[in-house]
Amino acid sequence: MKIIIALALLFVFCFPAFSQNNQNLAEKLGFDRNAKLLIIHADDMGLSQATNNAVIQAFQKGGITSGSIMVPCPWFSDIAEFAKNNTQFDIGIHLTLTSEWDSYFFGGVSPASAIPNLLNQKGYFYPSVEEFAKHANGAEVEKEIRAQIERALAFGIKPTHLDNHMGTILASPEYYQILLKMGHEYRLPVLIPADMIAGVSTQLLEMLSRDNVVVDHLFMLNQASPAKQWGEPYLKFIENMKPGLNEIIVHLAIDNDETRAIMVNHPDFGAEWRQHDLDFVLSPEFKKALNEYNIKLVTWRQIGEVQYPK
Amino acid sequence: MKIIIALALLFVFCFPAFSQNNQNLAEKLGFDRNAKLLIIHADDMGLSQATNNAVIQAFQKGGITSGSIMVPCPWFSDIAEFAKNNTQFDIGIHLTLTSEWDSYFFGGVSPASAIPNLLNQKGYFYPSVEEFAKHANGAEVEKEIRAQIERALAFGIKPTHLDNHMGTILASPEYYQILLKMGHEYRLPVLIPADMIAGVSTQLLEMLSRDNVVVDHLFMLNQASPAKQWGEPYLKFIENMKPGLNEIIVHLAIDNDETRAIMVNHPDFGAEWRQHDLDFVLSPEFKKALNEYNIKLVTWRQIGEVQYPK
Repeated sequence: MKIIIALALLFVFCFPAFSQNNQNLAEKLGFDRNAKLLIIHADDMGLSQATNNAVIQAFQKGGITSGSIMVPCPWFSDIAEFAKNNTQFDIGIHLTLTSEWDSYFFGGVSPASAIPNLLNQKGYFYPSVEEFAKHANGAEVEKEIRAQIERALAFGIKPTHLDNHMGTILASPEYYQILLKMGHEYRLPVLIPADMIAGVSTQLLEMLSRDNVVVDHLFMLNQASPAKQWGEPYLKFIENMKPGLNEIIVHLAIDNDETRAIMVNHPDFGAEWRQHDLDFVLSPEFKKALNEYNIKLVTWRQIGEVQYPK
Repeated sequence: MKIIIALALLFVFCFPAFSQNNQNLAEKLGFDRNAKLLIIHADDMGLSQATNNAVIQAFQKGGITSGSIMVPCPWFSDIAEFAKNNTQFDIGIHLTLTSEWDSYFFGGVSPASAIPNLLNQKGYFYPSVEEFAKHANGAEVEKEIRAQIERALAFGIKPTHLDNHMGTILASPEYYQILLKMGHEYRLPVLIPADMIAGVSTQLLEMLSRDNVVVDHLFMLNQASPAKQWGEPYLKFIENMKPGLNEIIVHLAIDNDETRAIMVNHPDFGAEWRQHDLDFVLSPEFKKALNEYNIKLVTWRQIGEVQYPK
């Protein structure tokens, strides 16, 4: 008996990670095993002044927990300055390989000659995932992703995570491997949406889950509701939220001349949409629901501290 | 006597240019020799959505005769599309080698590696003429100017003239020679402000006047007036306008969130300034003064047709 106890103690002392490994993410973050964890995430920081303005408001008023920056966009340096000076907020990099608007475009951070297959004739990214996938190759994707991360670092941003604009990276497992490699290299967690990946390949999901924290349930609007019912799909997701790591992605901007001009002809994810999203994350209904269903708000920084302990 | 007439006729028929050369610019444009010609010119097209919005309004309402586009700026492709589809308006290229705002920047059209001495550590143009002049060299200035012109052409713009943002080109006679060479090469008139150049060197001005149309009197505000008296310096310039080619340069934008964010800390040429300029060019006082003093509005396209006849 003594021998067994001694062996057990030896095991625990020699392999402390093992006992920790029995903890799930919620426990590692100090919550109950069955806690419903939620990241509320604003995409597209740096896209425009009206986006930066809205996301900053949402951070300051507690409407979101996290956001990520599009490095190739015109208002990047403005939001980079904010991120550098406000490290209390959880800000990552929204790796961008598409340029989807009608009169407002962005190209790569790399020289055009280094990524010819990611750019159209005018030197901008392709507007859709399909066109991106048709032309892109792994070497150029890696080059441009690395250039965006390096530029963010050069501007003084300390990113907390990596995610990807419009899901271009999901166009190919090869690109996903590159993204994961970057995550490991820079010691940054990467958004891995289990729901979506399991839909493609459960094997791939198992492989990813071994070395990475995955977001069990990702939710974002995919169609507009009437203004008065804007929050309903979000509230429903909260009501039905399952234990594990959840993420709600919102698209915030002020609905003004700038936003309307950028998003002309794009009712989906357009100017009104983004103002409604902003109004919703700042609404008392949203806060109330988060309390009522005992949702535990977490950040990518916390995930990173679990995935890459110092 | 008959011989003299025959010789005179022969001379006129064989050298029609000679008789035209006796005409001054006003006459070549179909006006009286002593006409007061005026170009009303909006700088900085392409800088922002609010700039494009304001300049388009001013063109459509007849508040300006001309404008020029900053090719390296985020809203370039938007205004390029407008210029391509509205060739009735007189639009040139505002060659840009500085990036003067605090949170909104632009770099070159050329790859950064091709113009290292025009860019700061972050890859943007220097903010002031002084810093530009300290670092720049002729080879890179020429490369970047050419790249901006070529990009404008590639986007379907048919520019009517070349001018220069913040007068960087005036930093060195060498750069001015490059600009003039570009003008001759692309058969585009170049803004040559006689007032300013005569202040530096009357010899240089004489040299320039031989092969180019020069703007005899250039006027732009260099300090703000109270809102109610905003137009007074312009009206005074009109009242005292001299015969020859005159140009008024205005800086137009809507004073909104985007403009205020770009121009933060810049009361000079800032958001209010630009809204006042827009209000002024659209005002009845401006139109009335132009009529009252018998000012003849002309465009750079007309100048180009004189300087580079087809």
